[in-house]
Amino acid sequence: MDKIYEYIRRDMAFSHAITLLSWDLETEAPVKAIDGISNTMEVLTQLQYENFVNDEFKKMLYDLDEDKLSEIDKKVVKKLKKDVFEKMSKIPKDEYAKYSSLVTKATQKWEIAKNKEDYSLFKDYLQDLIDTNKKFILYRGYKKNPYDVLLDDYETNLTVEKADKFFDLIRKELIPFIKEIRSKDTTKLEDIKKRFYSVKFSIEEQREISKILSNIMGFDYDKGVIKESEHPFTTNMNNKDVRITTHYYLDDVLSSIYSTVHETGHAIYEQQVDDKYNDTGILSGGSTMGIHESQSRIYENVIGKMKEFTDLIYSLLEKYRKLNISKDEFYLLVNEVKNQYYRTEADEVTYPIHVMIRYEIEKYIFSNIDTKINASDLEKMWNDLYEEYLGIRPKNAKEGILQDSHWAGGAFGYFPSYAIASAYASQIYHALEKKVDVKKAIEDKDFKKINDFLREGIHQYGNSKTPEELIKLCTGEEFNPEYYIKYLKSKYERIYK
Amino acid sequence: MDKIYEYIRRDMAFSHAITLLSWDLETEAPVKAIDGISNTMEVLTQLQYENFVNDEFKKMLYDLDEDKLSEIDKKVVKKLKKDVFEKMSKIPKDEYAKYSSLVTKATQKWEIAKNKEDYSLFKDYLQDLIDTNKKFILYRGYKKNPYDVLLDDYETNLTVEKADKFFDLIRKELIPFIKEIRSKDTTKLEDIKKRFYSVKFSIEEQREISKILSNIMGFDYDKGVIKESEHPFTTNMNNKDVRITTHYYLDDVLSSIYSTVHETGHAIYEQQVDDKYNDTGILSGGSTMGIHESQSRIYENVIGKMKEFTDLIYSLLEKYRKLNISKDEFYLLVNEVKNQYYRTEADEVTYPIHVMIRYEIEKYIFSNIDTKINASDLEKMWNDLYEEYLGIRPKNAKEGILQDSHWAGGAFGYFPSYAIASAYASQIYHALEKKVDVKKAIEDKDFKKINDFLREGIHQYGNSKTPEELIKLCTGEEFNPEYYIKYLKSKYERIYK
Repeated sequence: MDKIYEYIRRDMAFSHAITLLSWDLETEAPVKAIDGISNTMEVLTQLQYENFVNDEFKKMLYDLDEDKLSEIDKKVVKKLKKDVFEKMSKIPKDEYAKYSSLVTKATQKWEIAKNKEDYSLFKDYLQDLIDTNKKFILYRGYKKNPYDVLLDDYETNLTVEKADKFFDLIRKELIPFIKEIRSKDTTKLEDIKKRFYSVKFSIEEQREISKILSNIMGFDYDKGVIKESEHPFTTNMNNKDVRITTHYYLDDVLSSIYSTVHETGHAIYEQQVDDKYNDTGILSGGSTMGIHESQSRIYENVIGKMKEFTDLIYSLLEKYRKLNISKDEFYLLVNEVKNQYYRTEADEVTYPIHVMIRYEIEKYIFSNIDTKINASDLEKMWNDLYEEYLGIRPKNAKEGILQDSHWAGGAFGYFPSYAIASAYASQIYHALEKKVDVKKAIEDKDFKKINDFLREGIHQYGNSKTPEELIKLCTGEEFNPEYYIKYLKSKYERIYK
Repeated sequence: MDKIYEYIRRDMAFSHAITLLSWDLETEAPVKAIDGISNTMEVLTQLQYENFVNDEFKKMLYDLDEDKLSEIDKKVVKKLKKDVFEKMSKIPKDEYAKYSSLVTKATQKWEIAKNKEDYSLFKDYLQDLIDTNKKFILYRGYKKNPYDVLLDDYETNLTVEKADKFFDLIRKELIPFIKEIRSKDTTKLEDIKKRFYSVKFSIEEQREISKILSNIMGFDYDKGVIKESEHPFTTNMNNKDVRITTHYYLDDVLSSIYSTVHETGHAIYEQQVDDKYNDTGILSGGSTMGIHESQSRIYENVIGKMKEFTDLIYSLLEKYRKLNISKDEFYLLVNEVKNQYYRTEADEVTYPIHVMIRYEIEKYIFSNIDTKINASDLEKMWNDLYEEYLGIRPKNAKEGILQDSHWAGGAFGYFPSYAIASAYASQIYHALEKKVDVKKAIEDKDFKKINDFLREGIHQYGNSKTPEELIKLCTGEEFNPEYYIKYLKSKYERIYK
């Protein structure tokens, strides 16, 4: 096992360097540095691949007598076998390298196509990405549904069968509920918004507010950095070095505030992973995308949009200047439900619908593994689904099929985890509420109680448990999306009574 | 040769990652990230070592038919043989990696010890660094003086014999000259300083001034970054990604201004290296430390402290607020000669004396390769030399032996190149003046003429020539330190007439 850990130590060094290079590219590197950075990343990525994918390491790993290993070592070995030899190594090295360069080019093209609002500039790349991913699924093999392979990449053990059940519930419960909400008169809310957005906050002020807020929430600056980038994100080198970014808009102070709250949720997760996983690499970060997003979303939405939290933000803002609205009006503004085109700007209620639309498209593509899916048809499919579910039809590809970067990056199977994450968050909140007086904790600015609960139930375990295990450990129950529906309905019925 | 370039490409990727990790550590990483960063640096340093130091690569390199190579390839091969197989490979792999982690830890310790003004906290690390470096010299072998090996690391072909001759001249000419200057009445200068420093500039204003000034001088922001760190430095990933830092003090606006001018000199050098060396790695950066420092010093001192340049700074400052002194007084203030403790704050005339003191200590340590030198004795030696040469005795280790980071970083043999650099700078300026009307160029804020001359004579060649070759190419003469003595004496006799 000591030999195995030498390989792991190298793998961690490559990951650290690659993560830092990419952080540097997003936050600081000069424009002409891009070629040098992508060159270095390409070399290191290939070295990282070769470090694990080789016969010597494979033999070592499969020759181990697992019975003699510690609990942690057993998990490390199991995960390595799965990630490296059931996944990475199934794809021929040259196809793997070619795919990674396809992704880079597709992402560049996507950005251009999006800005020109022209899907035709991107669709050939999407076709190639789809076809290659189908080929990879076949290399890797599947049991029931080919799409399961991709779902499992982002949310371990998630299958089409489970996801269908989840989205059926969403569809049945939320579509009529949204229709009902949207039939209400919005004149008053429009007036609140007009008054609120007439007050501006400078970038310097927003930077300060973000810092104060993440500090109150428990972000540890001895183990982290806050910086700026085009799109907010969280990244981490290890649990002592977790970095988040936000983006400040002069005319929208709430954008940077809620992206900070979201990323701080991710960051606290990483900072609270137990040190005992530090040297394992593969177990040392957070768990699946779904679990990770549940931790950003419980903060951004469930806690972050409670009255007590919006009051907290309100008073932070009022330290700079008088807001033109009351605290109650601010709460209504933050919790507005609105049918609009962009997933990332969606409120809590419509959010899962945006995700469901992407899920349905991906399911259509990858369930039909042997049928050639024509990328040209997907824009219409996207628009039809928006019209069917939200009653709005995108007028161009920028507000339609080109709005997200995920597909350009080859991340098929990623989206569903976003909606599941929100459902996890509701269920976790339900359990949290039983142990901690959350309202009082927010009023007292005492987030330690909340973070301790999340550390206990989720964070400490790093990547050593499945989502099912974590939900059970944290809430005492199996995953149950009814909590999500109940939470959304009772909250928004109250607001839109 | 193509095969060789595959190794070089990997080497460059490692260098890029390691440089970025170290930049990150100095400018941004959270305090608790240090262990993770030094771990990763250790692994990558070892991999970088193994990439070159192995029999396969050695055979490939030595089997090449050099006659068939291009001029550039010939130089690459020659340098690789020297750096890798006459130097790096002589040190056992595990000792090499261990040393790199010692350096990281020693640097952290040094910072703490310095701030606590307590040499005893650092001396064991210094002992270890000295002993390890002596061992490495023995591994590498030496001809005349063991210290030559270290001198050559920073200034190719520099030896104790040459350095002794240089510092003998300095000692003979400058010690009495400084005594004479310091016998003058300083009442008027003290009054000028009092008035100047009564006017303060905010950090934000200083940041802006640094940016404007480096921009005027020709720093290319598309290929570079300016940031902040405890100690100012320049680093580069490649000629399209050159980064400098400065440090802002509320009560000393000149500190950040002159460190920016200095680092900008380094940066312009790197940015102007010819693209044809980009893929060679080993030839792609600037030349030796001495040549590099000559480029920062010609800007910081020779050009930066000319009347026309101090006038330029004066008018930049006056855009923020009225200074309490005249332009002529400002020139006197900037060019004050003063016996004080810190090398980095030294004026042009006393500067080489600070370096000479370090040279004498290093020469004592490393010339006596077989004698155990006790690190405990070095603080007294340092203080004695300051008393002997400058008539002042440091009251604590912060203003004494702990002031520089070099030894903590294992950079023995580095200091002498600083003084030689100043001498190069004087000689290069002498040549520049014949071709360019420097005074007019500064008045016109037209630094392109100056930078073009430096590019022609020095920068373009990257690391493809020896210092002797570069000085000859740029000035048409052999290196001659008499230019330096003449420059200093004539300038400061005029000021202190």
